[in-house]
Amino acid sequence: MENKVARTSEAQPIRCKAAVSRKQGEALSIEEIIVAPPMACEARIKVICTTLCHVDLTFWNTKDPASIWPRILGHEAIGVVESIGENVTEVAKGDVVMTIFLPDCGECVDCKSEKSNLCSKFPFKVSPWMPRYDSSRFTDLNGHIIHHFLFVSSFTEYTVVDIANLTKIHPLVPPNKACLLSCGISAGLGAAWRLANVEPGSTVAIFGLGSIGLAVAEGARFCGATRIIGVDVKPEKFEIAKKFGVTDFVNAGECGDKSLSQIIIDMTGGGADYCFECVGLTSSVHEAYASCRKGWGKTIVLGVDKPESKLSLNTREILFNGKSLIGCLFGGLKPKSHVPVLLKRYMDKELKLDEFVTHELKFKDINKAFDLLMKGECLRCVVWMDK
Amino acid sequence: MENKVARTSEAQPIRCKAAVSRKQGEALSIEEIIVAPPMACEARIKVICTTLCHVDLTFWNTKDPASIWPRILGHEAIGVVESIGENVTEVAKGDVVMTIFLPDCGECVDCKSEKSNLCSKFPFKVSPWMPRYDSSRFTDLNGHIIHHFLFVSSFTEYTVVDIANLTKIHPLVPPNKACLLSCGISAGLGAAWRLANVEPGSTVAIFGLGSIGLAVAEGARFCGATRIIGVDVKPEKFEIAKKFGVTDFVNAGECGDKSLSQIIIDMTGGGADYCFECVGLTSSVHEAYASCRKGWGKTIVLGVDKPESKLSLNTREILFNGKSLIGCLFGGLKPKSHVPVLLKRYMDKELKLDEFVTHELKFKDINKAFDLLMKGECLRCVVWMDK
Repeated sequence: MENKVARTSEAQPIRCKAAVSRKQGEALSIEEIIVAPPMACEARIKVICTTLCHVDLTFWNTKDPASIWPRILGHEAIGVVESIGENVTEVAKGDVVMTIFLPDCGECVDCKSEKSNLCSKFPFKVSPWMPRYDSSRFTDLNGHIIHHFLFVSSFTEYTVVDIANLTKIHPLVPPNKACLLSCGISAGLGAAWRLANVEPGSTVAIFGLGSIGLAVAEGARFCGATRIIGVDVKPEKFEIAKKFGVTDFVNAGECGDKSLSQIIIDMTGGGADYCFECVGLTSSVHEAYASCRKGWGKTIVLGVDKPESKLSLNTREILFNGKSLIGCLFGGLKPKSHVPVLLKRYMDKELKLDEFVTHELKFKDINKAFDLLMKGECLRCVVWMDK
Repeated sequence: MENKVARTSEAQPIRCKAAVSRKQGEALSIEEIIVAPPMACEARIKVICTTLCHVDLTFWNTKDPASIWPRILGHEAIGVVESIGENVTEVAKGDVVMTIFLPDCGECVDCKSEKSNLCSKFPFKVSPWMPRYDSSRFTDLNGHIIHHFLFVSSFTEYTVVDIANLTKIHPLVPPNKACLLSCGISAGLGAAWRLANVEPGSTVAIFGLGSIGLAVAEGARFCGATRIIGVDVKPEKFEIAKKFGVTDFVNAGECGDKSLSQIIIDMTGGGADYCFECVGLTSSVHEAYASCRKGWGKTIVLGVDKPESKLSLNTREILFNGKSLIGCLFGGLKPKSHVPVLLKRYMDKELKLDEFVTHELKFKDINKAFDLLMKGECLRCVVWMDK
């Protein structure tokens, strides 16, 4: 697709290094690419650092119809605006920005509403293109298109991002901590804070103690939950989880004669006030729903299972128990209004982020980050672009 | 089971007429029975009038394991306290009371909480006994036990009800209107007012325009909804529904090439803010969930389908759309605190109830009320005990 708008004279194509995913499941290839200048309502970003998320892994090694190669993966990042397209007033050259996969156009009924975080002008999709023009800003040195990922593509020294996917942040926030709020950690924090609206003194059960589950714990602790039950099949995770406020541990692999939900109901005298599913297993959503308290329990879905796996509920289960089943992308957070609040709370030392960063690597070693995440050896691995 | 408590001298067994369900699906038999005096925490009630609800029909003609004969059905009623057992301070002889199947003990953590209406001391069940003692107060003239229904059994001139199932009401409220709030109409009103918390200016879709669906409409209108879409397979119901605030009608039997949910999404520019399922079909819950708006839509389940019929949702449907799925008995209303509020609003002419009463019959004609309800020819049929 041809660019339809004039560019400023200073914005010329940039030649830089990117880690390109060329084939399903194969190591990323670090190569030189050309990054086109931003079009109207876009900004070109010099990436400072980026983090890996399981969503990158999933689309790196899946036969999902939304997968397409070659592609530049990565969607959690902090960068500096290098140049802007026409009609961009929200950020200027030199601003520090966070990329967020969930668009926030600021104009549609959803973005203007306090109740929704799902932009209806640019609905979330796993597109290989930029959101506004359905075209790419990346080519290899032979002029062949390289596709985008989640409207961000951060595994490159430079990327182009729509203004709807950028949140300006305070330049004094350390970028290797700020980038955590770009996706998964925000989803967990937001699920506790905004979606569930965890009340002080309440009891929470978290199914799955990966990064997102731990972020839920941190969010629940921040909201004043007094009992936070972590559920996982790996007991060693409990030690890490304690740092994020988890008070009790249930080994889902050693339930004995009882169901997991019965154990939690017994522990809590009737069920947890809030249950968060962070594993991505439908069976785990079932246990979470069964574990939450009759009368007011909320079950919040954060994980994604295969499309063919279905949660199966009878209408009596729904009608007789007064429970809610909810879910939302990005923990229900509005990228441009809620993320700066979380960052401020981190800077004020009210919210923990440092503990999520277990590894930091140079860009040239980005494939090691994939290994670490696949082996479950890290929470978040930060990749620095200039190191 | 033997009575364990002493009785007051004035409370002796009463011989009176009752409509006894003696066999599945057979006409009720009006016969003389003996109603024992109330035990501690119980009151004996002289029934003024009672209404039929589909739940009575269901348990009159079902092979559900919870069905048991002989039994006195009926659970929506207004009566006068004839005598009280020990430890009853909440009502006194001569008080006008409403029977409510859902216990409200006032002491357990649920009854004390603003968030729950599901008493945990006497959990809701379709029991053949009184809630506190697991025994019956009814015998026939041969001394054989007759079973209770939903802790109420109102198809009799006198019944015994636990204090947890009684709400004292103002004696000036017409009993043939007040009794409507005893179950189904309250469930519909409560679902809109308390469970969904319908916001002014919002859009509502109601699947099924029976009494409960119309009560949802009235509740939504009362809450300030500006567009109320009624969905049914019988277009003639739309004329009645208009009285309760329904503004638009969709014939679920004539959707053409579109799905029902797509029609509602198109009508509302994205989906209804609140969707209420009042048919009792799992397929209809699916359509309701699909019809509610991305970002903030709530689907409220009020109907009950067969146990083997399962709602099937993929985790992506839950996570990607920001919707809620909720349900609760009695529309989430707390029997003793919320029902008097609704009655006051009726007396203040803010809430419509009169229009639900389409038929009034004498007690001796109670089987006609079953016919009317089965044929779908009435909304609510009031049965007067003394006429």
